[in-house]
Amino acid sequence: MTDVKHMKWWGWGVDGVAFHHGDKPAFAPFVQMAVGIDVNDPATAATSFDDIVVPESRATSEFVVELRGIVGEQNATTDAMERVVHTFGKSIRDLVRVRSGHLDRTPDVVVYPADEAEVQRVVDAAVAVDAVIIPFGGGSNIVGSLEPHADESRTVISLDLGRLNRVLDIDEESGLARIEAGVLGPDLETQLTAKGWTLGHFPDSFTHSTLGGWVATRSSGMQSDKYGDIADIARGLRVVRPGGVLVIRAIPSASTGPSVREMIVGSEGRLGVITEVTVQVHRVPAQREILAYLFPNWKASLEAMHEISESDATPSVTRVSDARETGFSFATAKESKGISKLVTQGLQRFLMAKGWKIDQMCLSFIGYEGSASHVARQKKLVGAIVKKHGGIGVGKGPGVLYDQKKFDTPYLRDFLLDRGAAADVSETAAPWSKLAGLYDHAIASANRAYEEIGVKGWIMAHLSHSYHSGACLYFTFAFAHGDDPLAQYDVVKGAIQQAFIDSGATISHHHGVGLEHAPWLEQDISAGGVAVMQGLFDSADPMGTFNPGKIIVR
Amino acid sequence: MTDVKHMKWWGWGVDGVAFHHGDKPAFAPFVQMAVGIDVNDPATAATSFDDIVVPESRATSEFVVELRGIVGEQNATTDAMERVVHTFGKSIRDLVRVRSGHLDRTPDVVVYPADEAEVQRVVDAAVAVDAVIIPFGGGSNIVGSLEPHADESRTVISLDLGRLNRVLDIDEESGLARIEAGVLGPDLETQLTAKGWTLGHFPDSFTHSTLGGWVATRSSGMQSDKYGDIADIARGLRVVRPGGVLVIRAIPSASTGPSVREMIVGSEGRLGVITEVTVQVHRVPAQREILAYLFPNWKASLEAMHEISESDATPSVTRVSDARETGFSFATAKESKGISKLVTQGLQRFLMAKGWKIDQMCLSFIGYEGSASHVARQKKLVGAIVKKHGGIGVGKGPGVLYDQKKFDTPYLRDFLLDRGAAADVSETAAPWSKLAGLYDHAIASANRAYEEIGVKGWIMAHLSHSYHSGACLYFTFAFAHGDDPLAQYDVVKGAIQQAFIDSGATISHHHGVGLEHAPWLEQDISAGGVAVMQGLFDSADPMGTFNPGKIIVR
Repeated sequence: MTDVKHMKWWGWGVDGVAFHHGDKPAFAPFVQMAVGIDVNDPATAATSFDDIVVPESRATSEFVVELRGIVGEQNATTDAMERVVHTFGKSIRDLVRVRSGHLDRTPDVVVYPADEAEVQRVVDAAVAVDAVIIPFGGGSNIVGSLEPHADESRTVISLDLGRLNRVLDIDEESGLARIEAGVLGPDLETQLTAKGWTLGHFPDSFTHSTLGGWVATRSSGMQSDKYGDIADIARGLRVVRPGGVLVIRAIPSASTGPSVREMIVGSEGRLGVITEVTVQVHRVPAQREILAYLFPNWKASLEAMHEISESDATPSVTRVSDARETGFSFATAKESKGISKLVTQGLQRFLMAKGWKIDQMCLSFIGYEGSASHVARQKKLVGAIVKKHGGIGVGKGPGVLYDQKKFDTPYLRDFLLDRGAAADVSETAAPWSKLAGLYDHAIASANRAYEEIGVKGWIMAHLSHSYHSGACLYFTFAFAHGDDPLAQYDVVKGAIQQAFIDSGATISHHHGVGLEHAPWLEQDISAGGVAVMQGLFDSADPMGTFNPGKIIVR
Repeated sequence: MTDVKHMKWWGWGVDGVAFHHGDKPAFAPFVQMAVGIDVNDPATAATSFDDIVVPESRATSEFVVELRGIVGEQNATTDAMERVVHTFGKSIRDLVRVRSGHLDRTPDVVVYPADEAEVQRVVDAAVAVDAVIIPFGGGSNIVGSLEPHADESRTVISLDLGRLNRVLDIDEESGLARIEAGVLGPDLETQLTAKGWTLGHFPDSFTHSTLGGWVATRSSGMQSDKYGDIADIARGLRVVRPGGVLVIRAIPSASTGPSVREMIVGSEGRLGVITEVTVQVHRVPAQREILAYLFPNWKASLEAMHEISESDATPSVTRVSDARETGFSFATAKESKGISKLVTQGLQRFLMAKGWKIDQMCLSFIGYEGSASHVARQKKLVGAIVKKHGGIGVGKGPGVLYDQKKFDTPYLRDFLLDRGAAADVSETAAPWSKLAGLYDHAIASANRAYEEIGVKGWIMAHLSHSYHSGACLYFTFAFAHGDDPLAQYDVVKGAIQQAFIDSGATISHHHGVGLEHAPWLEQDISAGGVAVMQGLFDSADPMGTFNPGKIIVR
């Protein structure tokens, strides 16, 4: 068998790692308050894989033999566990289905090519027999980009890029690295930092997502304010298509017609298989700091973030949580460390004395990178803006903690699902002038949806990426679900997405479209935009070989 | 007749304005040295329009009446001068042809719609009779994007956007302005600065190019280091297509599949008519300065620009001329002012005493914008880098002069053409590691081409835009042409473009593809890239209504 590692078949992350709250005394009361669940009640036992009925592979043995001839005996498999692992991503819809054995259609065969030449041969073999190819990176997708259509009658290949995991070359003079698309975030950074470089791309999914996946979904990392979104970072591309490789060379900026690079970015597998990306890399900065700040309320927080974006300051991270998420952060902090210190060491009394309402307080993290003098100046510029908007600096401690914990949140979702609460996220972006209204509308819509379906629910948000003309708002929502969690989820998720559209915001800032956001695509980019995109897909992939039906569902 | 203003039918710019050298004593010797022409010899008399044979319009009178019914009597015309003005852009190929009356095919009718609704009606009327639409902005294009195909048998409409020239709305909170696509640079800035805002987009063509044209060709302005290329600046778009308007809302960043926005940007009219653009605008900065520096040679200049791009400094302009262009700048300076002062006031002796060779010296302009303290810090950071690479600061004087003169260079081309010299430009971008080799290769290729065709020729260059991973090099070339200037031009231009490709650079950084660069497109973005783009054009415009045959020539 291949040595490519995967996440748990039924949930996020690595076997043996899970969220626990023994050392977080504020957590249980918080969950009780938010979704009405006692986390100390007995949890659902983990499903056993043996209880799952996995559909048979429909691949002919001849075709499997042919694929094995290309990638080697051990790198093409119809094994049931392999096929289940490659059926879904990790959205709440995926988790609920896979845990309950709702597997309408799995891939028929999973292949692990070793290099681009093998990918080309697999693609050409698939086209020859009219099979379907779904490229697979880390499997962290949460918008339904990975699953085969339930009624797909053709053979479905899950093409796992996990063996294409090497940094091939670093052009140290240009700050450009050629990297294979299947590399996971940590493996990529390890290879780069060994030579003094960093990609600077740290999405929440970092530990279990790949470079190719980031490009295919227009990913954005926590430090995008400095390093850019993946569409900025990915300069060169190699994409295997029937009969040959589409090659976009790494050029800093070009005027060569409609951007084919920007067609591949975000294509979610529909235009071919991304095998290599040439990315901008940066020297590991001399200094890197994340400072925490508190603001008296959400309005002041937004105004401060906006003013920072307009100022001469160029922080690497601008993040601020609303009061609800700030409360959540305090509730998930360990008793004796970091953030919780803030609320225990007299600060709360101090702030109340200043006239703050503790339940309206918003926690912010601002990141600084560069030379010592640059960092010092940035901190000074930001500090003045924070002060102007009534905020206060609370030092490095919480930032260090945030930095350590930032990739752990997804584990919490499995913990909650085991205890009867469904949680997921919706993220968007909008101009600065629309952010406050967008926020209010999305919160109100979610709460109306909870009322409509009669559940106790929770929603919180943070601003996560700033641009000249606007910002990304990232919502996390959870509710105590009933017997049909997915039907309930559809109501809540749908209400939030529609609120985005109605507020002039986009359906996704960095998660992609897949199946999950496709119903709102036309309202976002207009019927004309969908028609142009559909024409692109139809002309570039007339047989519907590449991940058909994603982004635009017909 | 319409009140939309156009450039001279036979050359650049406004009637009555021309290049003259009476106050530039170094100019005549420079031209003699560079291309062997005595500028004091008698010039060719300007062609009279009466000597030009303009092909008849092929538009039926019924169709013209229909168009007049949409845009009004005075705003649809078959007038010969109007049709000639709308036949070409302003490349040397265009100028040579129009001056010599080589008009194989002109548009049959020129229409000036008042607004988007009229554009829609014109488009739908054109589609109904299978006519061709070529959108027209300022007419400054130099890559052949505007001319009808010589063998086009259908009626050709030049759709002039000149009446769509208003700033419609400024979202002051977000820094976003909705602007009609036909507005010329100066009109746009006048409307914005009246309210304290600037677009910050200043291409060389600024005085005679439009917002819609910038978007359609992926334009880049002189201050792109701060404000970004037009692809960054243009957030929202409205594009009239058959039956309706494609609308991309202004979102700071989105993950909604392949970017339709980035398909429209650079489309050179092939996907429809851009009628409105929502752009990022910025507060007019408190302080704005352009400082001049001198470097001992080209290698040191490139290294300094590279180090600035890697540093914590964020200048608005990074520009450096090679030694040849530096010599040209000195030669076009007025005797008593600005740059020429540098070479007259002892500086030359000072530099020679430092060991500099005056004929290798390179002139650089670096721009700074922001608060006084920000500008001061930037200047300090840049100053240290300049010094490290052996350069010296020479103050504000030359920068002020550069700022005043920056849009005047195109007039010089007409002056030279009147005296037997053909001049044009080729610009490109490449990673930092390839710039020095690219430069040498392009210069050598041009000189080989001059030798091959037996002419005295000149080529010079500057670095004009810096990015994290590379920069734009902008070449200007001229030669004393013989009886067939276009055949000679093809040899020189072809040699330079092929040098770009062979050096790992792109065929255009910001001028577009049109007809002029189309022969090299496949070598730039690969056969696979061209096939995907062709599929986009064919599917989005199956009748070939919109500027057919540009970018990809079949």
